[in-house]
Amino acid sequence: MRIIVDAMGGDYAPDEVVKGCLEALSINKTVEIELIGDRKKIEKCLKKRLYDTSRLFITDAMEEITNNDTPTEAIKKKKNSSIVIGLNKMKANEGDAFISAGSTGALLAGSLLITGRMKGVHRPALAPVVPSESGNTMIIDAGMNTQVRPINYMQFGIMGSEYMKRMFGVESPRVGLVNVGTEERKGNNNLKQAYELLKNSDLNFIGNVEGRNITEGKVDVAVCDGLTGNAMLKIMEGTGRFFMDYLKKIYSMSLASKISFLMIRHELKKLKKHIDPEEVGGTPILGVNGIIYKCHGNSRANAFKNTILKACSSACASVLEQIRSIFSKMDVGGAYDEAL
Amino acid sequence: MRIIVDAMGGDYAPDEVVKGCLEALSINKTVEIELIGDRKKIEKCLKKRLYDTSRLFITDAMEEITNNDTPTEAIKKKKNSSIVIGLNKMKANEGDAFISAGSTGALLAGSLLITGRMKGVHRPALAPVVPSESGNTMIIDAGMNTQVRPINYMQFGIMGSEYMKRMFGVESPRVGLVNVGTEERKGNNNLKQAYELLKNSDLNFIGNVEGRNITEGKVDVAVCDGLTGNAMLKIMEGTGRFFMDYLKKIYSMSLASKISFLMIRHELKKLKKHIDPEEVGGTPILGVNGIIYKCHGNSRANAFKNTILKACSSACASVLEQIRSIFSKMDVGGAYDEAL
Repeated sequence: MRIIVDAMGGDYAPDEVVKGCLEALSINKTVEIELIGDRKKIEKCLKKRLYDTSRLFITDAMEEITNNDTPTEAIKKKKNSSIVIGLNKMKANEGDAFISAGSTGALLAGSLLITGRMKGVHRPALAPVVPSESGNTMIIDAGMNTQVRPINYMQFGIMGSEYMKRMFGVESPRVGLVNVGTEERKGNNNLKQAYELLKNSDLNFIGNVEGRNITEGKVDVAVCDGLTGNAMLKIMEGTGRFFMDYLKKIYSMSLASKISFLMIRHELKKLKKHIDPEEVGGTPILGVNGIIYKCHGNSRANAFKNTILKACSSACASVLEQIRSIFSKMDVGGAYDEAL
Repeated sequence: MRIIVDAMGGDYAPDEVVKGCLEALSINKTVEIELIGDRKKIEKCLKKRLYDTSRLFITDAMEEITNNDTPTEAIKKKKNSSIVIGLNKMKANEGDAFISAGSTGALLAGSLLITGRMKGVHRPALAPVVPSESGNTMIIDAGMNTQVRPINYMQFGIMGSEYMKRMFGVESPRVGLVNVGTEERKGNNNLKQAYELLKNSDLNFIGNVEGRNITEGKVDVAVCDGLTGNAMLKIMEGTGRFFMDYLKKIYSMSLASKISFLMIRHELKKLKKHIDPEEVGGTPILGVNGIIYKCHGNSRANAFKNTILKACSSACASVLEQIRSIFSKMDVGGAYDEAL
């Protein structure tokens, strides 16, 4: 198993990326990690560190894609950037997964242009899994597609279901269509058509769901367009941060509040662990020819470590192969094309 | 000042509605309240209660619109329902505001069909104000329109700005367009065109914003389509509830945790007050010919009381007249029609 990692992507690269890789190597005793980036900087991070040198590799990348670059142009022009090199290695089957905390736009563009869409998949999607009262719920799509047609919603449901089955052991993932209400005839025509497609599919479609049903854990795969999904994800993160910051402020106000914190810090730590993006790790891109994870730009070592371990699980659980198998059997002409 | 209230809408009607009205009457010594609904049931709630009888009125309504009724049909057929009677009274200028916790669909449909769109407004909108780190941020639209064009986004920005100016004293409300990223050329063509219209308007447009910028208080009016807004609002509420429930669970686990709670309960109460939908009260519908507030279906007395007081403030602050004045001066033909 070889995981390819963009050593230069993110606010704390390469230090935190390298640190996370080393932590992953010490937990998973068989995985190999290939770091792509500025060799000198990477080697500086590795100095005086103890690790299994037979399982860590470095590949040079002399260019860098920044958040100011136009994604598609950057992918086409910066051939020596870690993202382009990494995705090309995935295309050449030189790695089992690719992880990056770099430019989201570039990674998404690259996953389409280099790794390519899986046969039968009309639109790949960014598919974060968020904490909920049932444990975990996927929001798909969360930013890759701002123009979504009925067939796309259904395909999001299929890909999301397979992921939740194989990564979280959910037997029959409940798929819901994010809408302005839970009653059947809600939303614009696009959503109504999507509803019908989902209803008539083999998915465990539970109907329309609202944003709150996600945190309540009443759905396992919440299907939506990229703008809705991205907005929900970001406001959820913001609300979580708002609460944790408020609690931090309360607890540091006085001696009494500090004592109060000490009395329940174990439980608060559990809560933090459950919702902390560092613990959750990166977000998968589903529907492309490779396992690709996007990490938050502000990821630290813990997030990189957890994402590497997640990528290993995904490879072991054959998520990619399973999705590929389903789409290869589907009739993507005929009835589906009519829906386009 | 007369506030018309749907006594029969909501899960706890009419008891909690009546209770909230009486609380409002005791706080605001001049407002009159007209309750519309089943007279017998309302009078039963009023029995043995002390209140200024000269300021409370009851109007009969023998029909009821339920959440199972098709909104537009219900508005057309159930002429003796509290929502239809209330909105007709607004149309006839017999009240300064109308408040209901009944069927959202019916209230929205009725506000269009009976009260009517304000001249110049293409699409009215549901405009909740949510707590944020700057105090309060409006999300507009949050459920009324699932098909939104560039001109609508701009009009949402205008209406929202006026509301935040007059209700919250924000001098130059920062208007943001909810998008999949903050960079300028983001989103589909619709959003790009909306961006240009907003940029070239007189609004204090700060560009694209993400969901998290709302809770961070980096924007005062977050403009979006109804699905995105509704999804954000609902997942935000769900996340807030998730946290408050978790905290409640932690604090009731042991004697130590209960003591811990007592030490900071004052601060937690402040937090709850800040985010509690009961404290925030109802959501205004902007862009129609009347002050209309929609309360949560599960509203209790506190929410009704706060909504009545908010409606009074809105009337006193001439929010409606100010928005009407702006739209009457706008050229809603010509350049704007081109954008349609």
